[in-house]
Amino acid sequence: MTTPKGLFLTFEGIDGSGKSTQARRLAEHLRAQGRDVVLTREPGGSPGAEEIRRLVLEGDPDRWSAETEILLFTAARRDHLERTILPALEAGQVVICDRFADSTRMYQGLSRGDLRALVDQLHGLMIGREPDLTILVDMDPETGLSRAKGRQGTEERFEDFGPELQRKMRAGFLGLAKEFAGRFRVIDGNRDMDTVARDIAGVVEQALV
Amino acid sequence: MTTPKGLFLTFEGIDGSGKSTQARRLAEHLRAQGRDVVLTREPGGSPGAEEIRRLVLEGDPDRWSAETEILLFTAARRDHLERTILPALEAGQVVICDRFADSTRMYQGLSRGDLRALVDQLHGLMIGREPDLTILVDMDPETGLSRAKGRQGTEERFEDFGPELQRKMRAGFLGLAKEFAGRFRVIDGNRDMDTVARDIAGVVEQALV
Repeated sequence: MTTPKGLFLTFEGIDGSGKSTQARRLAEHLRAQGRDVVLTREPGGSPGAEEIRRLVLEGDPDRWSAETEILLFTAARRDHLERTILPALEAGQVVICDRFADSTRMYQGLSRGDLRALVDQLHGLMIGREPDLTILVDMDPETGLSRAKGRQGTEERFEDFGPELQRKMRAGFLGLAKEFAGRFRVIDGNRDMDTVARDIAGVVEQALV
Repeated sequence: MTTPKGLFLTFEGIDGSGKSTQARRLAEHLRAQGRDVVLTREPGGSPGAEEIRRLVLEGDPDRWSAETEILLFTAARRDHLERTILPALEAGQVVICDRFADSTRMYQGLSRGDLRALVDQLHGLMIGREPDLTILVDMDPETGLSRAKGRQGTEERFEDFGPELQRKMRAGFLGLAKEFAGRFRVIDGNRDMDTVARDIAGVVEQALV
């Protein structure tokens, strides 16, 4: 008897792109098909990583330098990978993760100084693992921003950067999709939610065959 | 007018070696000479790093893997360096730090799997800075252990490893002193406290000339 192979799926996109909703819908869809699914998110996703998440996202936005923030996110990711993602993949489950290392490449690598090279070196040293498939929910930056602003949360740090950054981030994610063309699939998130969900389900089902 | 050059001094040694007491006595001695001294410690030494310290040292000892622990200590060190150590050195102060990267090389690099190479790579990438002078308070492992056990604290994780580890750590610190012979000075900590303090003051005064 062979163990079923797990699949590691991530969702990426700018704030307000609908990726969290789509991640949840995909999880429901696959569960309805009888698949064993772990739906998780970053930063966080394991008890330790959630504690680190609180340390990073709460309090004064300037309390950590960009470099310290990257280290804390990498510590959280390492814990999440060891305690949640890898055990689930070993057990043959489908892991759906809302944000992963590509978000660090964008938000820490691009927005707070040009630290992409540092992010990549640290990732190579301490994480290594990439997703099998990454769904980029691509979204018009203005629409994304007005959607993100419609949600009021306690963790506003990454939503609070305005249309200029949203445009830069969208372009950055599309750049990553080209750089890692083998695992990225770009989905047009500007359409109605059901159509987007159907497209994503189609792409994922192909990967699960 | 030239700014006086700061000096970055660290104390290392096994638990119970008396290094914290000696660090404090050296600070008092230099202050009595009119020097501007910052006495600090790791893990911790800045508000953010102290929060990370609590995250690492409190709770179940197995809550973090060795790799995640190294990342958290490196995040704390980066914050400590940026917020406490470098500004003080810029201002020409003497920084005395109780433990620094050498402790990570020993405790995480040696005791929890053989992770010394990883510790060094991470240090090179995210910290870089070494002390100008490191005082190794060398101590008989059995004496150190019984002294450390005499102190009851809430953070017992690193004291709780027994004589075997104390011997291994002592040998490891002496190995580091050879490896980094340029900045290490080994002081025999088995003598009475005043003699040890006088020796250390002599070594440091030479470095301050």
